[in-house]
Amino acid sequence: MSGGFFKQRRSIEQIEESTELAPRFDENGLIPVVTTDHQSGEVLMLGHMNSEALALTIKTGVAHYWSRSRDKLWRKGETSGFVQQVVEMRIDDDQDSVWLSVSVQGSGASCHVGYKSCFYRTVPIGEESTSTPVLTFVEEEKIFDPKAVYGDAPNPTRV
Amino acid sequence: MSGGFFKQRRSIEQIEESTELAPRFDENGLIPVVTTDHQSGEVLMLGHMNSEALALTIKTGVAHYWSRSRDKLWRKGETSGFVQQVVEMRIDDDQDSVWLSVSVQGSGASCHVGYKSCFYRTVPIGEESTSTPVLTFVEEEKIFDPKAVYGDAPNPTRV
Repeated sequence: MSGGFFKQRRSIEQIEESTELAPRFDENGLIPVVTTDHQSGEVLMLGHMNSEALALTIKTGVAHYWSRSRDKLWRKGETSGFVQQVVEMRIDDDQDSVWLSVSVQGSGASCHVGYKSCFYRTVPIGEESTSTPVLTFVEEEKIFDPKAVYGDAPNPTRV
Repeated sequence: MSGGFFKQRRSIEQIEESTELAPRFDENGLIPVVTTDHQSGEVLMLGHMNSEALALTIKTGVAHYWSRSRDKLWRKGETSGFVQQVVEMRIDDDQDSVWLSVSVQGSGASCHVGYKSCFYRTVPIGEESTSTPVLTFVEEEKIFDPKAVYGDAPNPTRV
């Protein structure tokens, strides 16, 4: 469905300095997407889109991704109800990554573990030691119960 | 240098719910990194780190990346002077992406084209047409001259 919707990549000038949308998909046909909360600015998740997901997101204003764990097109929130309405989409200089600023429906969560943001742990910085870093949880409580929302669906995290 | 610095990935519970840093690098040995301005919250760039770059960033507090176009470790700002001091680092639920909140030295720019953010163009949303989307520039002016800063260095953008 995205045939002709995106422009062919022709030159550095076209890609960096023009108004043409000519995204670059990687060797797996995917482009990375960072998604932020349009009110708080917080980074909610880092996902991927294939060309169909990108075209659908642009046309519908609702975030679609490519699920690498399930290997299928994924309308975010189709199971959880936590649909992401796109407030703004941006593309970067060489058009190989996307920034979505969104408003999340329901509880406002975007993380399958139950937190608002997938980035619920900090990594300590600048400790010049040989010991391994210890993470700190910055979200105190989960805002939904993953078992209640996802039931027995397989966990997307790959060990 | 990162041997033993990161934990082995053992289980979903360890990865999602523990305080152990057990990052997942992809088939190219890289992990995607979203970098935001710690004051404005604006997304500045989306880059990649290998395990050495991640360990160096944690230990020094200065952002290091892996340059895919130059195929080498890259201390951001080594040419331009636009060094990124890390204010906070976070890791996501399945530990396969990183969020850096940074303070940028010099002009505060992070984009090789001359803009503050690499995401200087918006993509129109929700126009249910068959025509191709037309981008809009949201940064009015470049804040540095790439030719003056980078000279004849090759452009990292790949067509």
